[in-house]
Amino acid sequence: MSQFHFDLQHRDAATGARRGVFVTPHGPVQTPGFMPVGTQGTVKGVTIDQVAATGAHMILGNTYHLALRPGHETVRRLGGLHAMCGWEGPILTDSGGFQVFSLGEINKVTEHAATFRSHIDGRIVELTPEHSIEIQEALGSDVAMVLDHVIALPADPGAVTDAMERSIRWAKRCLEYANSDRQAKFAIVQGGLDETLRAQCARELTSMDFDGYAVGGLSVGEEPSEMYRVTAATTEHLPADHPRYLMGVGRPIDLLENVARGIDLFDCVMPTRNGRNSIAFTDAGPVKLRNAVHREDRRPVEQGCPCIACRHSRGYIRHLFNAGEMLGPILLSIHNLTYYQRLMAETRSAIEADRFEEFRREKIAGWDSAKTPGKAT
Amino acid sequence: MSQFHFDLQHRDAATGARRGVFVTPHGPVQTPGFMPVGTQGTVKGVTIDQVAATGAHMILGNTYHLALRPGHETVRRLGGLHAMCGWEGPILTDSGGFQVFSLGEINKVTEHAATFRSHIDGRIVELTPEHSIEIQEALGSDVAMVLDHVIALPADPGAVTDAMERSIRWAKRCLEYANSDRQAKFAIVQGGLDETLRAQCARELTSMDFDGYAVGGLSVGEEPSEMYRVTAATTEHLPADHPRYLMGVGRPIDLLENVARGIDLFDCVMPTRNGRNSIAFTDAGPVKLRNAVHREDRRPVEQGCPCIACRHSRGYIRHLFNAGEMLGPILLSIHNLTYYQRLMAETRSAIEADRFEEFRREKIAGWDSAKTPGKAT
Repeated sequence: MSQFHFDLQHRDAATGARRGVFVTPHGPVQTPGFMPVGTQGTVKGVTIDQVAATGAHMILGNTYHLALRPGHETVRRLGGLHAMCGWEGPILTDSGGFQVFSLGEINKVTEHAATFRSHIDGRIVELTPEHSIEIQEALGSDVAMVLDHVIALPADPGAVTDAMERSIRWAKRCLEYANSDRQAKFAIVQGGLDETLRAQCARELTSMDFDGYAVGGLSVGEEPSEMYRVTAATTEHLPADHPRYLMGVGRPIDLLENVARGIDLFDCVMPTRNGRNSIAFTDAGPVKLRNAVHREDRRPVEQGCPCIACRHSRGYIRHLFNAGEMLGPILLSIHNLTYYQRLMAETRSAIEADRFEEFRREKIAGWDSAKTPGKAT
Repeated sequence: MSQFHFDLQHRDAATGARRGVFVTPHGPVQTPGFMPVGTQGTVKGVTIDQVAATGAHMILGNTYHLALRPGHETVRRLGGLHAMCGWEGPILTDSGGFQVFSLGEINKVTEHAATFRSHIDGRIVELTPEHSIEIQEALGSDVAMVLDHVIALPADPGAVTDAMERSIRWAKRCLEYANSDRQAKFAIVQGGLDETLRAQCARELTSMDFDGYAVGGLSVGEEPSEMYRVTAATTEHLPADHPRYLMGVGRPIDLLENVARGIDLFDCVMPTRNGRNSIAFTDAGPVKLRNAVHREDRRPVEQGCPCIACRHSRGYIRHLFNAGEMLGPILLSIHNLTYYQRLMAETRSAIEADRFEEFRREKIAGWDSAKTPGKAT
């Protein structure tokens, strides 16, 4: 792990929360940390300097999307993903496993490869573990994820075991194929909602030489309590000195609950997707700016928020959505990304001060306050 | 003209070009200058700090659009247009005359008012000269335009004369109704393509006490050479010590040709509209970024341009448009607005140095170079 290492700086006294720094060739990532999602080489609606201004340390790119369009060789010829999108910090790329599962119109998995029909032009694409790594090396990300076999939940135990075991074999193939010491490799623990399978998968993957471990196959429709239970049962079997990444999660409360269970890194499209739909995250819960109640409200979306959206009134942002102006989605995407980064920064401070448990309780009470009748906006 | 004045600093030796400063309560506007258009209280796709970063001194808001949505009383209650959109510099609002002409589904003009059906909700709205001023006072712009009677060209001479004479009477009503010394009033010269009518209209309007004069009713489909001819025939009759504004114009070449004919201020949606359609303005003429030729082009849209779009490659911007990402329109809107502001800054320097004629020739030669076969992109 030459150019990468994880410094575990502090463990919370009362929970599994950890404060660390994941060091990469493109700079450090303070953990717990949240990665904005740049699916197609851009965080939707936000310029790269605006992404940096939200406080993000690391962003995520999607192997599946970039391989199909503009093509990973095109990205390579444009100087790699960092040069192309202008991001100077670290980038993590996923492996395509989740998109094959969620987007491919046909998707057939054999021991050799995942085969799917492109959602863009209908052509048949074969993605092997080796090809996924090859694409990620062309993209030039700091962290490559192994190709995993993702399945819908609930599924019968045999199918869950089969996908988990294949994910382990594919992880090994990825590790053997990988050929860049400037790219960390993260394994992905699968095993559905079964704690025994999760433990087995974690043990087998940690016997190989990965730079970090992800919890995959969650946030696919299961109850939050189930997600928290499986996360805890997985992190228990992961080494303390490696970063842990919970893929595709989630709501603010999911971040805090999973930090409490030992997770260091998150990614999710929720801040930008909800922002485009006029929903802002605040300490008093989500606020739907399109609603008429905000029409002449001169208050910002959130008092004290330093983002550029919060220099404006709720009434103005409501008008922008009502009039179909691009600036509405732009501003709320920035606000929400800033909200997530502030939440992670506060989380890190709370862990350092050994008051994470109290912090989590206060935040959840604030988010719940919006559910009081008459307060919903 | 208490809080407003126009300092004519230098006249070009060889052409009608002028270098001046229009001083307003929200700061000075260097002229010749270009105003980005913020139709509905936002320059489309661009945050207000990004607008400022392009070098713009003054922006334009649309009375018609803002009166219909969110409503000028709502804008007033949100603190006025400056506070609402966060623009600290001067704002000019048009009167609604052009939109009644171009957007209203029914539009009927009597001596009393223009009546039209709202393009948003179908309701019938009556716009009198007095009401137009009342709306603009509620918006709180620095410069209010008088309501004018705009007609389609070509039109028969009787109709042109009738609309021109009504525009003069309406200008007088606006001036008499206006009640804010923090808002300059600009008259609009009409008269179609008829130089005699233009001269007559200019003479009558300049006998009243306006703070500036606009040339209206152009850029409605006439040949550029016709536009230039009419501009010259109009500015000839306007006082040198007042700012002159050519409404709704235009392409980069139109800006230079009309500066040469004594115009100080411009506005146009072209930089943002073309940007959203993947067309970038450059010194070598327009470049269509959506074209496949840019697929792996690592050069910026324009070498030496300081805008944030030009930190990226053409290949990246082509990918953004191809993938339907919002960032494509955002970046090219910023590039084009920056291009227009740089063109105006260079124009001002050229006038100061008495080399505007040479500057104009060089620019036009550059724009024409793209028309050479094989060079078009």
